[in-house]
Amino acid sequence: MGVIHIDDRDDPRVDDFRDLSTADRRPDRPGGKGLVIAEGTVVVSRLLASRYPVRALLGVERRFAELAAELDGVGAPQYVASAETMAEIVGFHLNRGILAVADRPAPLTVSDVVADARTIAVLEGVGDHENLGALFRNAAALGVGGVLLGPGCSDPLYRRSVRVSMGHVLRVPFGHLTDWPGGLDDLRARGFAVAAFTPRPGSVPLRELREHAPGRVALVFGAEGPGLTETALAAADHAVRIPMTAGVDSLNIATAAAVAFYELASGD
Amino acid sequence: MGVIHIDDRDDPRVDDFRDLSTADRRPDRPGGKGLVIAEGTVVVSRLLASRYPVRALLGVERRFAELAAELDGVGAPQYVASAETMAEIVGFHLNRGILAVADRPAPLTVSDVVADARTIAVLEGVGDHENLGALFRNAAALGVGGVLLGPGCSDPLYRRSVRVSMGHVLRVPFGHLTDWPGGLDDLRARGFAVAAFTPRPGSVPLRELREHAPGRVALVFGAEGPGLTETALAAADHAVRIPMTAGVDSLNIATAAAVAFYELASGD
Repeated sequence: MGVIHIDDRDDPRVDDFRDLSTADRRPDRPGGKGLVIAEGTVVVSRLLASRYPVRALLGVERRFAELAAELDGVGAPQYVASAETMAEIVGFHLNRGILAVADRPAPLTVSDVVADARTIAVLEGVGDHENLGALFRNAAALGVGGVLLGPGCSDPLYRRSVRVSMGHVLRVPFGHLTDWPGGLDDLRARGFAVAAFTPRPGSVPLRELREHAPGRVALVFGAEGPGLTETALAAADHAVRIPMTAGVDSLNIATAAAVAFYELASGD
Repeated sequence: MGVIHIDDRDDPRVDDFRDLSTADRRPDRPGGKGLVIAEGTVVVSRLLASRYPVRALLGVERRFAELAAELDGVGAPQYVASAETMAEIVGFHLNRGILAVADRPAPLTVSDVVADARTIAVLEGVGDHENLGALFRNAAALGVGGVLLGPGCSDPLYRRSVRVSMGHVLRVPFGHLTDWPGGLDDLRARGFAVAAFTPRPGSVPLRELREHAPGRVALVFGAEGPGLTETALAAADHAVRIPMTAGVDSLNIATAAAVAFYELASGD
């Protein structure tokens, strides 16, 4: 398709990029969910390298130039616009200067997600899009092979999650555990020790987890505040805590996960 | 002073709370800096327990009731208003329902900050208020005794930093290293090993830092992206890295700091 210059804010060819602040709701699309939106050269290049089918790109000339190598061989149309026209299309001024939009691929199965993973994260009730995105970024950085979403989690492909993850939601395999907490038994059957995080006294300090779980580990986290349900805690093999100063609230969920990911990775 | 009901949005007694979105700039105050603003019962209770001189509180009846125990003996006026009047005063609807405002106390000296600390954090160029706030929260949770701000750091007492820190900027001692990088030599003279974080190959993996630095440690972090300057790296005793997956951007600065704080605390 190559490069197409867009001068008219109402050009229907850039409809996928229209009014981005509401782009996560698309009643016209399957499930009512939005397309996957990548913002900025870093995230766009991750999208281009991912399994996600790119529909189109929209950006200013300079940003396309920066991505020339990554765009080599990309068949999706590249819509070039001025910063002003782009702002009129997306509904606000976008500092990052380039966007790409992709279809949602078929979800991965649990088998797909855990296939090559030694350590995975399992989430229950993590509804905050920023925390979810940050957790994926931390998983990518610290060698966690996959993420499974239990009940009450939000959609990691929301625009804000994709952005906060720096595009790593497009890279770290994820799927859904629809049977809960039965899905944890399934993970156990696949050779994972199930370690549930809780500040509860009597739980194993994180530093000692490797002694109890030397092989594959599923690290289970609940939302900041409520934490894991009793149901999830009862279904785990180990209750684990990150030792913390008395009187301090728990860490942010993505931060707690990073600490756990680090410990598991460097304890090997 | 006790409880005072405020019905008039223009009442001059609540001027400290007026138009909160611009409250960080107060040309009428020393240094042009705003007062310290605590939002919500958790942060307000931390402020009440801190060394910060509280000037006044403003909130809805229900939130004052929740803080009754913490407010016992507090001399500052407690302005009670409806949610509507409060929104008119502060300029937007505030879900948290209660605010407190305090004067900035005299800054702590480096000696004050490090006095009881075995591990401290030293920051260079950390300008993002959310990252700064999150770092203080992590320091409080993971037993870091103090924070020293080198050049290019923003003000931890900005409203957003106080909020993101969950009020822990009011609790974790902090001060400024005005001599840079000379201040790092001063820390060394006080018995600290100076450990600078960098992704550079050849640096010590975090897991091994305790072997090199068994005593007091100053953990030095730069901003996400640029990282530490050569000047700072050259002045350190150890260059330390958090082992990360190839091709992944560095962790968020507050997250990297949390991992380091955890390692230092649990390696003891």
